[in-house]
Amino acid sequence: MSFFLHSKKLDFSTGHEAVVVINEKEAQYYGVMPGDRVQLTWNSKLRRVAEIRTTTSKVKPGEIGLFKELFAKNAKIDSGDIVEVDLISRPPSIQAIRKQLFGKPLEYDEIYSIIKDIVDDRLSEIETTYYVASSYNREYSMEELYYTSKAVAETGEMLNLPVKAVDKHSVGGLPGNRTTMVVVPIIASLGLYIPKTSSRAITSPSGTSDTMEVLAPVSFSMKKIKKIVKEAKGCMVWGGAVNLAPADDKIVRLTRPLGIEPYDKMIVSIMAKKVAMGIDYLVLDLPVGSTTKIPKKKFADEIEQKFLYLGKKFGMKVKIIRTPAFEPIGRGIGPALEARDVLRVIQQKDLRPVDLEKKSVKLAGHLLELAKYCGSGQGEKIALDQLKSGAADKQMKKIINAQGGKANIDSDAVAIGALNYEIHAKKSGIIKEVNNKAINEICINLGAPNEKIAGIHLHAYYKQKVKNHDKLFTLYAQSQDRINLALKSLEKNRVFIIK
Amino acid sequence: MSFFLHSKKLDFSTGHEAVVVINEKEAQYYGVMPGDRVQLTWNSKLRRVAEIRTTTSKVKPGEIGLFKELFAKNAKIDSGDIVEVDLISRPPSIQAIRKQLFGKPLEYDEIYSIIKDIVDDRLSEIETTYYVASSYNREYSMEELYYTSKAVAETGEMLNLPVKAVDKHSVGGLPGNRTTMVVVPIIASLGLYIPKTSSRAITSPSGTSDTMEVLAPVSFSMKKIKKIVKEAKGCMVWGGAVNLAPADDKIVRLTRPLGIEPYDKMIVSIMAKKVAMGIDYLVLDLPVGSTTKIPKKKFADEIEQKFLYLGKKFGMKVKIIRTPAFEPIGRGIGPALEARDVLRVIQQKDLRPVDLEKKSVKLAGHLLELAKYCGSGQGEKIALDQLKSGAADKQMKKIINAQGGKANIDSDAVAIGALNYEIHAKKSGIIKEVNNKAINEICINLGAPNEKIAGIHLHAYYKQKVKNHDKLFTLYAQSQDRINLALKSLEKNRVFIIK
Repeated sequence: MSFFLHSKKLDFSTGHEAVVVINEKEAQYYGVMPGDRVQLTWNSKLRRVAEIRTTTSKVKPGEIGLFKELFAKNAKIDSGDIVEVDLISRPPSIQAIRKQLFGKPLEYDEIYSIIKDIVDDRLSEIETTYYVASSYNREYSMEELYYTSKAVAETGEMLNLPVKAVDKHSVGGLPGNRTTMVVVPIIASLGLYIPKTSSRAITSPSGTSDTMEVLAPVSFSMKKIKKIVKEAKGCMVWGGAVNLAPADDKIVRLTRPLGIEPYDKMIVSIMAKKVAMGIDYLVLDLPVGSTTKIPKKKFADEIEQKFLYLGKKFGMKVKIIRTPAFEPIGRGIGPALEARDVLRVIQQKDLRPVDLEKKSVKLAGHLLELAKYCGSGQGEKIALDQLKSGAADKQMKKIINAQGGKANIDSDAVAIGALNYEIHAKKSGIIKEVNNKAINEICINLGAPNEKIAGIHLHAYYKQKVKNHDKLFTLYAQSQDRINLALKSLEKNRVFIIK
Repeated sequence: MSFFLHSKKLDFSTGHEAVVVINEKEAQYYGVMPGDRVQLTWNSKLRRVAEIRTTTSKVKPGEIGLFKELFAKNAKIDSGDIVEVDLISRPPSIQAIRKQLFGKPLEYDEIYSIIKDIVDDRLSEIETTYYVASSYNREYSMEELYYTSKAVAETGEMLNLPVKAVDKHSVGGLPGNRTTMVVVPIIASLGLYIPKTSSRAITSPSGTSDTMEVLAPVSFSMKKIKKIVKEAKGCMVWGGAVNLAPADDKIVRLTRPLGIEPYDKMIVSIMAKKVAMGIDYLVLDLPVGSTTKIPKKKFADEIEQKFLYLGKKFGMKVKIIRTPAFEPIGRGIGPALEARDVLRVIQQKDLRPVDLEKKSVKLAGHLLELAKYCGSGQGEKIALDQLKSGAADKQMKKIINAQGGKANIDSDAVAIGALNYEIHAKKSGIIKEVNNKAINEICINLGAPNEKIAGIHLHAYYKQKVKNHDKLFTLYAQSQDRINLALKSLEKNRVFIIK
């Protein structure tokens, strides 16, 4: 379709964007919407492609507002000249979104066009929501999963290491659980490349990147990450600082209002980032249990199938490790408290949390076996040896150093909350349940993750026998105000159910 | 979940809304989003339900910003006091939207909760889009269609006439096609009640309400509409002025980016409005043809099935009349030109457009038979007699009068564009095709519907033989500028294909 309007010179500049302004009402009658792209022809020649904006007052019906730039000497246009406006059909990604909504399978080119347009902001939030809706509505086919992961990876930056790389990833949900920071130095100390990216806290008191940041900076360019990995074999950086799978962030934001992340979306999100980082061997820690993202074995089975399929398509060996999930891994929750736990394990201190060490060694062992570094059944021993020999500690110092942190920090020198407050049992019994959600909420009340030194240190654990007045956990915070908030929270939320 | 924050007095007033402000980062960690509703407790007493807003600067982490109103003397709160914030679970409508997205059938209460929350602005645009997406993705079941139509009707104003009412409705797409304005006075002149609401132009040069507005005001309250209908048996008013099926407008706006309206959405939209107006007998004009909304017989069959089912559920007798669609109905396109056509038919002038008269009489006849005003096969004659006898003209004057217009206007006294320009054939031949889209675009270029007097009058019609230089149509506009725009448009768009 095409229509005709008189040009009107708008006396200001738009800078970068080629936009034209037409009257809102008239735009509506023509079926043209803000954001639609049009071709502009005047003086018998196609002059420009521009995007529509509408106004109720600045431009009258019958007119089209053109910005200063378009009136340049060689443009051959005067105020009042007739401009032909041709609507360029909606971007192909809109067609593809419609197709997907109607339940028809998409080709790679179509999925790529959607993801690329999301990344480049060529789709509105509403349009993108229609796309996201399609992933709630039915399961993706295996092909769609593959195409989507590929497109999400390829529309962002990619690491392109010239060597094979390994990685481990934990599907979130458990407080503490900083196995990454133990696994990475173990693996790197054995000469394998492990370019690990992590997230910051999204809805929790700390993400791996928040915890690592206690020890070293975590925001780097892809080029710098490459350099760190070359130097230290491993890294622990924040994925958000590079343009890693950028479509994913935008999509995640749109799933939040519904409060559910479809599994297929989660799978795409994880896989795309691993593909972008060029991972060849991936161990995936899948906590299964009623308080995690994956409450049932059936779901874990489906997720496993899909990851294995995707691994095959991308030439990535994937191993899923299902772990039970009843309580936090490690004793500390909050960035500094978790970092102290990690260093205690790496530095093999007496006070180290054994559960964190065990789980980390297990995951590292699986990774070594998967990457054929050793035979089946030998991985855990090798991993543990790296801790015991001090090799992992040495490697951790190298990584911290490469990332510009203080490499020689001792676990006990990690600064922990200025103020603390001990919580004691009010009766004797056995800890029948640990309320992970309450732990998270109290830690946020204490100021984590913004205040690195805030959080909780647990003295008791699941299934433990406790006596009245036993120390259960300690609150740490920057200020008494924050302690007070957490105490109020504790009046409502019980961390341990003792029976 | 619940968390605790120190109150901070914000030194301005929010007027109507109960909102509180918390730090954006902290809100995110807690998984709380702007728009979420929370309960506020302080001094051991539940004080208020409010909606969350977030800020990056005005309120620090650990604080909750409360507006002046909350510090009223009896509120017993001081700056710095601890406030307990409990997230009230997302509205039930969000659960229902999720359920629908996952393809599960919804109960009436669930659909009602969605529609009600859309109307009351309790759902964000993104959330509403997820709901709308579900209607693209699969066909509604018959029950869903019924529940949705009922909810859309009941969440708006309803007319509640104490008598039986009839109506006719045309599914849009054809220029001209002002049968409504002929049918209503015919039917009303026979003593039947026909409380007709119409729309304004959405993406066209005129809607029935724009055309009627040439003769009388069309915006009234429901109370006033009731009065008009009591007085004149019929009305022709703008549905947008009353709160008629208000969810529909919001939903329509969200379907526009995809450029397709699902049939089920269209059916709900029509049916809800008829239910709200208390219609007992409905004739539905369904233009079928390649240039209309319904290109295939198969689709028409499905639509008919659904309307008949809904009719049964609502106790409304529905008859579908399929009409072929090749060219505009009537000679004029544009508000005033259409109004002149309508009056020419009603006033039985020699120059009246016969196609408009024929189609109107046909639809009126069907409506009379459906409403058992007469036996089968007698309706058309009765309808035509009302035109010939002047009874319809008399009734039209009553209606115009009841709506506050100039009742005695003669068809030839309708003001038509100040300037006109005749277009002649450039060769001899037969009109093989009429380009309805080009007609619409040229009329908008001429200034319709904002300029009532703008538009086109057609002198030739589909399948007619024309000779070189024969008059084909006349352009009407307020100004030479507009004529110039249309002439430019005519260089690109052919209205008649002569072969």
